[in-house]
Amino acid sequence: MDRPDLEQLISALESSGAPRVADGAGVVEDRADERRAVDIAQALTHADNETGRLIISLLDDERAAEALATTDDHTRGAILQMLDVERITRIIDELDPDDAADLIPLVPEAKRAATLAGLDVDLRAAIERLFRYEPDSAGGIMTTEVVFVDAAATCGDALAKIGQAEQPETIGTLYVVDAAHTLVGVVSLKDLLTSNHDRRVGEIMDSDVIFVRARQDQEEAARIADHYHLSSLPVIDSARRLVGLITVDDIMDVLQEEASEDMMRLAGTNVNHPTSEPLLSRLRARAPWLGVTLIGTFLAGLLLEGIEAVFFPSQLDAAMGKLLGATKSSSEAVANAHAFKMLMYYIPLIGGMAGNVGSQSSTIMVRGFATGEVDPKRPGRVLRGELLLALLIGILGGILVGALVSATHPDYPVLGLIVGLALPCAIVTAALAGTLIPFACQAVNVDPAYAGGPFLLTLNDLAAYTIYFAVAIGLIDMLGTFGMNPPS
Amino acid sequence: MDRPDLEQLISALESSGAPRVADGAGVVEDRADERRAVDIAQALTHADNETGRLIISLLDDERAAEALATTDDHTRGAILQMLDVERITRIIDELDPDDAADLIPLVPEAKRAATLAGLDVDLRAAIERLFRYEPDSAGGIMTTEVVFVDAAATCGDALAKIGQAEQPETIGTLYVVDAAHTLVGVVSLKDLLTSNHDRRVGEIMDSDVIFVRARQDQEEAARIADHYHLSSLPVIDSARRLVGLITVDDIMDVLQEEASEDMMRLAGTNVNHPTSEPLLSRLRARAPWLGVTLIGTFLAGLLLEGIEAVFFPSQLDAAMGKLLGATKSSSEAVANAHAFKMLMYYIPLIGGMAGNVGSQSSTIMVRGFATGEVDPKRPGRVLRGELLLALLIGILGGILVGALVSATHPDYPVLGLIVGLALPCAIVTAALAGTLIPFACQAVNVDPAYAGGPFLLTLNDLAAYTIYFAVAIGLIDMLGTFGMNPPS
Repeated sequence: MDRPDLEQLISALESSGAPRVADGAGVVEDRADERRAVDIAQALTHADNETGRLIISLLDDERAAEALATTDDHTRGAILQMLDVERITRIIDELDPDDAADLIPLVPEAKRAATLAGLDVDLRAAIERLFRYEPDSAGGIMTTEVVFVDAAATCGDALAKIGQAEQPETIGTLYVVDAAHTLVGVVSLKDLLTSNHDRRVGEIMDSDVIFVRARQDQEEAARIADHYHLSSLPVIDSARRLVGLITVDDIMDVLQEEASEDMMRLAGTNVNHPTSEPLLSRLRARAPWLGVTLIGTFLAGLLLEGIEAVFFPSQLDAAMGKLLGATKSSSEAVANAHAFKMLMYYIPLIGGMAGNVGSQSSTIMVRGFATGEVDPKRPGRVLRGELLLALLIGILGGILVGALVSATHPDYPVLGLIVGLALPCAIVTAALAGTLIPFACQAVNVDPAYAGGPFLLTLNDLAAYTIYFAVAIGLIDMLGTFGMNPPS
Repeated sequence: MDRPDLEQLISALESSGAPRVADGAGVVEDRADERRAVDIAQALTHADNETGRLIISLLDDERAAEALATTDDHTRGAILQMLDVERITRIIDELDPDDAADLIPLVPEAKRAATLAGLDVDLRAAIERLFRYEPDSAGGIMTTEVVFVDAAATCGDALAKIGQAEQPETIGTLYVVDAAHTLVGVVSLKDLLTSNHDRRVGEIMDSDVIFVRARQDQEEAARIADHYHLSSLPVIDSARRLVGLITVDDIMDVLQEEASEDMMRLAGTNVNHPTSEPLLSRLRARAPWLGVTLIGTFLAGLLLEGIEAVFFPSQLDAAMGKLLGATKSSSEAVANAHAFKMLMYYIPLIGGMAGNVGSQSSTIMVRGFATGEVDPKRPGRVLRGELLLALLIGILGGILVGALVSATHPDYPVLGLIVGLALPCAIVTAALAGTLIPFACQAVNVDPAYAGGPFLLTLNDLAAYTIYFAVAIGLIDMLGTFGMNPPS
């Protein structure tokens, strides 16, 4: 866990950090609070548990609710762990049903039933309706607080209804339902304002309304909204009844999340906000694909060895050793040729593993800058975690590959030692470059994404080979042998 | 250019393709048209010039304008090329100033002055104001059609103003200015509707308004809006006057564009919508980073060679050849050992180049699926282009690297031939896998991003090495020599 950055926490509590009209008078308090919640949430994400608890205790329920609603699941879980049922209930009562539904599964199991029982009756009912849908479905991300009007109502009634609505941001459009609550149309506020107040909504509505079904995937919903440039999307159930609304916030979140996921998966790691996750879950997220690379590139080594044995037979190991046994210099020459050749088999493995870990680090930084999760001015905050993780990956990979090499080449115990020791060194170096180069680019205003790609991969290749052979030369020199006694 | 897909074009012209309330009656025509424009634009992107012209000629000016506004620059330029000044002027007159300003630079230079002269006076003035800002700045993407109200006006006046506004989607909030047009606050529609109509707007407004300066970068603007979950952001000039508005559409576009750019740059290619670009500009977008990889991995080969010469001297080339000249089998053994060792130097180059081209293809597919640019059901549409591009890259890279290898190893002319010939084969295979594996994943409902990463890189390594040595063995066999006459 990172140390709490008190300076940042205090500034988050005091101001929102964004440009404002400085000389504006008469700040409306609740709006400003809502914005600051975003900054508080960001501070919470980077704070340790104790500091997180302190911050939450300083906030009133509404602010705490907003902050919890906008932080990540890991931080939420840690904070909920420390609050008592009564506070949790009060905080969740402040939330919209969709945000509340997201929090409930993170409430520690021992407190969950009591929390649910304590909630406002309407909110609990709304949460239970949302729980019928998968978290990744349109129904799972929708808000149930949708402003609708009956087609038979007058425009005057509709305007009055908007005036009573709680969420000002979603009232640019009003959805129209029939007596069975079936979605039948949509009407814009502009049309309501310019129509005669006695006209029926059904007469002026647009019945060609684009919607999404509650069970459809959230990505599909976001794509429909994005495709048709809609700022909100009504959600219907299987009976075509209007059950909720997906707002522009949700759509942007899904699109951003999807982009992040794609990038992380392309880099071979599964976590979306990796720098805030604990080390072990980050290891679990990365390990499978690094394992694929390790096994694959190890097989590549065996492939090279096999190609050599079949198509380029030289019997360097045995026949030539005996043949040249006559002079010391020639026996050394054979041993050298042999050692170099065997070391070359693991070039794909060393280069591939270093390249992958370096790419993962740089992708996490590039994406973190874009989503605001990583502060481009504070490399120190993420560097330690990345290096520690790389060291862990390197050690585990080194043990595994050392064992594999030793098992397949029992006559050359030093070879497994060399590969197993060079791997963590190359991986840590790659993680260092993969983390720091994006920061350096950001500092000199070059898009870090450019530097994270082929440039970094190539640099990591060169560094990895240098490290690999340095370890090899050092170990052979130290132990005075490469294995399989040289001919004497 | 792809052949026009008439089936898709017709269906785009006939329907919007998205789920709708099928039994809804009384479709309001102009709204449905606006949506279809998005689908027509997508068809235009994939159509050839002749078909594009045909589609545009079938559309009325408003639809044509909407379609042009939502397609990519390459398609826009091609269509504008074919229209006469009169039609261009009528189409642009239908657009909002920000969209119109985007189109003007794409009008062929010969027609541009006449087009500008023919435009509506107000529109031309608005376009000229927008031209003062960089296309990538907040001012460059804003719309100038912002609904505002004077702080001294009454709530009743404000509501009347909203009723007259042209853009219904931006009227959820109303920006408040003073007599000097300085931005001083914001007021929500809900507050206007629930306040006494005689109250001054200045009394009920929220003066804590978040804005962006016109000269700030568009990405900064999008990030502020994303950070504070705002669905629109007012834009001010250096004198704090309200000059425009960035809407949620623009914000989503910038965020999506940024994510796409980051992914493409991480993969080492610069184009945002590569499959719709002509082959040569796609080559230009990819070539620089592939050049970095080629030179870097070639240097890696020299590094390996240098390490061997200094730390693992074996004089396999000369001394041992002479020493072993006695028997035919031992001379062959030395030649084999020597050939294999020299071929190994280029393992990083072959693997690195194939890996990079494969990653570029898979990243383009993964991102294309997400943005809807690539149809996951039609691999044929993009495959030919990707393979052709890979072949071109391979041939150019092969010639370059063949020359480099021959220049650095003049005694082994076959070595340059092998590397130069194996490179295009390995690259085309990698592009094939990089393009088709994401489609295969999509077909079996596995996220293609998973398969595009380390799995593909490792697979490409194995394939590339196999191809490389197959070419080597074949060529050595065919020519009966590897170069530098074997000792006889």
